[in-house]
Formats: sequence, C-alpha cells, structure tokens
Amino acid sequence: MKGESRNLVKRLPRVVILGAGFAGLTAARSLSGKAKVVLVDRHNYQTFLPLLYQVATAGLAADHVAHPIRGALRKLDIDFRMGSPISIDHKNKSVKLDSSETIEFDHLVIALGSATTDFGIPGVTDHALGMKNIHEALRIRGEVMRRFEDLCRIDDGSKLTITVVGGGPTGVEMAGALAELKRGPLKLDHPSSAQRIHIRLIEAGPDLLPSLHKKLSNKTRKDLETLGVEVALNTKVAKVHPDRIDISNGESIESEITIWAAGVTGEPVMKKLSLPILNGRIEVEPTLQVVNYPHIWAIGDIAGAKGKDGRFLPMVAPVAMQQARFIATQISKLASIGKLTEFSYKDKGSMATIGRHKAVVEVGRLRLTGAIAWFAWLWLHLFYLLGGRNKIGTMADWTWNYLTFDRGNRHIMDGAEL
Amino acid sequence: MKGESRNLVKRLPRVVILGAGFAGLTAARSLSGKAKVVLVDRHNYQTFLPLLYQVATAGLAADHVAHPIRGALRKLDIDFRMGSPISIDHKNKSVKLDSSETIEFDHLVIALGSATTDFGIPGVTDHALGMKNIHEALRIRGEVMRRFEDLCRIDDGSKLTITVVGGGPTGVEMAGALAELKRGPLKLDHPSSAQRIHIRLIEAGPDLLPSLHKKLSNKTRKDLETLGVEVALNTKVAKVHPDRIDISNGESIESEITIWAAGVTGEPVMKKLSLPILNGRIEVEPTLQVVNYPHIWAIGDIAGAKGKDGRFLPMVAPVAMQQARFIATQISKLASIGKLTEFSYKDKGSMATIGRHKAVVEVGRLRLTGAIAWFAWLWLHLFYLLGGRNKIGTMADWTWNYLTFDRGNRHIMDGAEL
Repeated sequence: MKGESRNLVKRLPRVVILGAGFAGLTAARSLSGKAKVVLVDRHNYQTFLPLLYQVATAGLAADHVAHPIRGALRKLDIDFRMGSPISIDHKNKSVKLDSSETIEFDHLVIALGSATTDFGIPGVTDHALGMKNIHEALRIRGEVMRRFEDLCRIDDGSKLTITVVGGGPTGVEMAGALAELKRGPLKLDHPSSAQRIHIRLIEAGPDLLPSLHKKLSNKTRKDLETLGVEVALNTKVAKVHPDRIDISNGESIESEITIWAAGVTGEPVMKKLSLPILNGRIEVEPTLQVVNYPHIWAIGDIAGAKGKDGRFLPMVAPVAMQQARFIATQISKLASIGKLTEFSYKDKGSMATIGRHKAVVEVGRLRLTGAIAWFAWLWLHLFYLLGGRNKIGTMADWTWNYLTFDRGNRHIMDGAEL
Repeated sequence: MKGESRNLVKRLPRVVILGAGFAGLTAARSLSGKAKVVLVDRHNYQTFLPLLYQVATAGLAADHVAHPIRGALRKLDIDFRMGSPISIDHKNKSVKLDSSETIEFDHLVIALGSATTDFGIPGVTDHALGMKNIHEALRIRGEVMRRFEDLCRIDDGSKLTITVVGGGPTGVEMAGALAELKRGPLKLDHPSSAQRIHIRLIEAGPDLLPSLHKKLSNKTRKDLETLGVEVALNTKVAKVHPDRIDISNGESIESEITIWAAGVTGEPVMKKLSLPILNGRIEVEPTLQVVNYPHIWAIGDIAGAKGKDGRFLPMVAPVAMQQARFIATQISKLASIGKLTEFSYKDKGSMATIGRHKAVVEVGRLRLTGAIAWFAWLWLHLFYLLGGRNKIGTMADWTWNYLTFDRGNRHIMDGAEL
C-alpha cells in the first residue's frame, strides 16, 4: 500500500505556475491534488485589480484589495515562491527565478498578467499615472489629494484638471469615482476648492465601453456627464506633458494630473522567457499551449488567445479563470494520455460602475442600467474578492461610504512625501 | 449689529498650531470658536500611533490607523494647511512653511510630536527599524514577511531572529504581536518556517514597563515568555549590525531584524525654530509657555513639561490631550486678561496589551491583568480611534483576527520591492 501511494505521488506531473493573479491562482487551485504545483509571484499577495480604482479614489483601504497568497493556498498541497522569472532553460525544462532558485517542471504555466502600455505615445511613461498595482493606485490618490491641498492653500481661482485617458471599464469607473470624490468628500472638506476641480474622460474611439451595446455606451456617457465629467470622444492623445496633453488634431488641453487607462499589454517580464510573442502577448495554439512549446501554457491577460471571431479575447478575469480551469483539465488529460481540446470562451457578460446607483450590465441580450445594475456590480465584486476579511472590510467601507456620502481613505500615503 | 459682530471677530486671537497629533488636533478643536485657528501638519491625516504596531504585525490595514485631518475639522471654523515649519519670525510673529507660505499668529502652539532617537548608539539609524509612522510600520511588516518568504524557500534549518529593543509599552506590544503572528498565521502558512523564527525583547533596565507596578512588570514578562518571546533584561545595546547586535557586556547576538522601540525625543524639525531646547524637548514654563516666548506654547511629546516629582511627563496621549485643553483655556484667559495657571497632569493610568487575552492595566491603585485588562485595552483604543470608518474597520479586522486566529494584512507593500 505504502509503495503504491508513493508511486502515485511520483507520477504526478510537476507544474510551475508563473503569476498568482486570477489566472495563476485559479490554475493552482484546480491542479491541486492532480499535480505537484509550485506557484510563483513577485508579491506575497494577490491584488484584486477590479477594485484598484477605489483605492485610488479614497473609497477603499489599500489592504482590502490585497490577499495573502499563502492564505489562499492553506489546506492545499501547493508550494509558493515569491520571485520573478529570469529565464527558462528549455532543454532541462526548468525556470530560474530572481531569488536565484531554479525550479524544474513537466509543465510550465505562464500567467504573468498585463502591464500598462503607452502605445509609443511620448510623455506617457514620464507624466501619466498608470493603475496596475497598489502602489500606482496610492500614487494617484496621493497626487489628487496633494493637488487638492494646493488648491486649498492658494485661493486665487486656479483650477485643477484631472484627465482620465481611455474609455474602457477602468477609465469609466475611474472618472466616475473621481467625480464622486469631488462632489462628496472634497466638497465637505473645502467647498470652494472642490469646485475648482475639473474631471475629463478622453476616448480615442467614438464610444465609451465599446464592447457593450451602443445604448449602454450612451447611457454611460450621460451618467458621467450628470456627475460633472467632461467626456471627449474621438479624441486621440498625441503627447503628454506635465501639465497638459497634446491632442492629435493639434489642440492642447490643460491637465495637471493625467491618468492612463488607455491600454494594456502582456507583462514585459515575458520578454526574458524566449517565447514567441505576437502583438504584445504570448502566441498560443487554440489549446492554450505556447506555439512550438507543447509543455508550456499561457493563460490570462498575457496569452494571445483568440475568440471565435478571430479577435484577441478581452483581458478580463472571467477569461483568465475559464482558461485556468481549462488548462488544469488539459494537463490532467496529458497525464492520462487523453486528447487535448481547444479552448472556447463563454462570455458571461460585462459590467462597469459609474457612480452611486449608476452602472451598466450586459449579459447576453439582457441589458441593465441604474440602481439594479449597480447593486449587481457590488455583489459580484464582493463575491469574487478573496478572503473573508477583505469581504467584511470592503463591505464595511462601502456601507460607510454609502450611508455618509463620504470616503474615509483620503490619506496621502504613497511614500512620495518622505 | 453687523459692526459689532465684526468687531468681535476681529478681537479673536490668531492661533497657529504646528502638528495635528493628539496634542495639536485636541488644541485646535478646543480653541474652535474662541480663536482663529490654522492647523498645520506635514500629512493630510492623523496617525493613531498606539495601534501602529498592529499595522506592522499584519493585524490592521494601514488606512485604519490614519484619519483625514480635514474630516476631523468639518463643521468647525478651523483652517488646515499641509506643510512643515521652516522658521519662526519672532519679530513679526509669523511662521514660514515649506510650502513657502507665511502665516501670522498672536499665539503659536508647537505640537510637533516626537521621533525615534538612537541615543548616539552606532548602527541604529542604518540597521534598525523605527516605528513612528505608517511607512515605518509597513517597512517592518515588509521586512518580516520578506524574511519569512526566504525561510520558506531555503529549507536548510537557518533561523530568523527578530529583536525588539526597548521594554516600554511599544516594545512589549510589538514583541507580543510578533509572537502571535508567528504562532498563528505564519504557522498556518508554513509550519516548519514559522518554527525557525525567534523573537527576543531587550530592555536596558531591570524591568519591563518600568512605569507600572513591579507585579505587572513581572506578569508582562511571564506572559511574553508564555508566548515564546525571549526576554533579556539589564541588556544594553552597544552597536547594531545588519545581522547582529553587540551588547555592552561584550557579547554579540544574532538579529536579522532589529526593531528600535528604545527611545523617543522631540521631533527634530524643532531645531529650525530657534527655541530653547533641553534634553531633546522644548523648554517650557509650568504654564506651558516656551521659556522666554510668552506667546509660544509647547504641548505633547515635544514639550519638556515636568510633573510634581520634577521628572519629565511621559510622552503619551493623555498628557498631550490634557495639555491641549489646558493651553486652549490659557489662551482664552489671556484674551480676557485673566491670570495664567500652572499645568498639572492627572495620571489616569497606563496599559499595554501583550497578546490575546493578555494585557496589563494600572489605574491608581487598581491593577488588572488577563482577559479583563485585554478587553479594557481594546475598547479604550477603539474609543479614541478617530472616525467612524476607522472604528468599524478596526472592529471588523479585530473580530476577524479574534475568531479566526488569523491576520489578514500580511501584504508586503512597503515599496521596497519596486
């Protein structure tokens, strides 16, 4: 008996997963028991990216959108390593980490996620604020609150313009939350200064939330305008300066704070891994195996997987989690010499929140707006938030914000003041 | 009528308060309506220092021990300025801030608080971690969790020794919380690594919590030892190295992480203000006026005020708040040509928490230990925590920690990993 179970353990494939976001963590959990899994991430926590904009706009405590990875792995037979990949040794099937550790694998899963891209537009990297991790969110919060303090000090009628670039869900939610921060807490803090804040949302295309139905796009624009956000469609950024933005039509507009929510690309660390890259994402087969590397898989934002329409799948959590569960099955199949299948994404819909009682939801042909959509958004996000403590803490923060119209997390704690 | 009220407004003294800690904020609130107050702080939030060690040991979210100052001043006629003082113009009675603003005053209140001091011991500044602000607390959390990840990676029996220097309330609470972090969450995360963490508390004198009764000091030591903390009394630090500490008796002990809770002195920014300084604190009359400057007051940690026994008053919140209310009355008296009185501190007792159901409380001749003392500590701290959101959030975190024996805020987010 004992020898048998030892044999069984021996036969389990060794799987190394790079990245513990929605894709990597879901894959690790799905493979637990079926493989010997080592999960690798540069942080010791998972960041709940969909709520990062609320940290940036003082609605949530930074710690509430993070969850310790080891906490999520308890009672599962999964190893965790904090670190970043430096290189893959394809011959010996091993991956080297910046902690100078080398880990061997039978299967390698690349789930490193995405990073902000500037599309080569000058000035973005230097003068615009990204929003892909907790530090960037705290930096945005710090910049907004610092500039607000400047307004309070210098009562000479000077204005503060905050521009959010990008009309996708992140940009829309960010612009809406900034508008509510201005209209509520900052107005209570110093009315005349709050009035001098101008919030603008810029989108290069003709629609906000282009993946949703046109009706919802229009509703989103109207809701944002009701909140006092200036929405500029068909407006392409040519260059970002410290205090203004050049538009491609030759105009130049004021912008003391520019927030870049315009585009994401595969996490640049992937370039070290000598894997085929296409359009900023790792090239994969329909089976999610990396092209030419049948034992390496790519899932989530970093994978250049395509939908039935031949277009890249969106960089969203549902895609990542479906892919994660899919490759877990694929790897098990390979272990039992089963036949691989092709991944197909089941679109369960999209949603974005704009402000209090204002959101848009599209699930198949069902389209919701207003308070119902807003509560649906709240509950879904609370449901997917990792960890009971974060759920309770977030619920507490939200209830407080909802009842008081206030936002308690206005602290400038991005470290720039040190 | 209108002219009369304008005259009344004119007669209100202009008071500038430097620092929005317990002392400064209490003074501002007490003077509201009786003076034209400008409150100045380098942060836009007040830090609740008594709970900082819980941020450092993963028990509380960083945002929960901070409270936006403007939020605390709403509905009061008090101006707030974010900034640090650069100099005082004693002739023209004005103070210059690093925001290049100059503010005139009739009365100036110095409430800048305290900073860690190394007593001139070499290596402390470079190799020991202080704990006087949120960033330092997050740095401690980051260092502990990073070293823990190292232990998990290198399973070669190597140890991690964390030394807390200073047996006052801060050191005791820190050592106890570290022990509970090790025994609970870290043990659940990776049992064999948690076992290799050694926690030590060093005190130069013969007693922990020397301001309390000897019985409570002994109980504190026993409680800490029950939690697995090595307590070393009569142990003076001679030099701190990156991985060890030299003791004054010639011994050298291992210490990969050294936390400095051994001493505080008046915030060094005071040196710019050309005021008399004695033993690291601003020299004050029994009336709390700065010696030779009858229109400048010093309160809280930075004030070198003495008790009836001729010794400096302890640097604790109750002293700061009593002094704040006292000088508010003094300033009002001066406005109505009343006679100044001398400040005397009413000691309402001291307390320190050691761990779950373990605390010591001394109020006059009443001495409590164990669960009663612990719950008394919890409620008092919750009561003094600023802001309903922080109260709710802290209560949520504490309830979670209490019921699950876990600590959810183990995230390494001190910025050192960027």
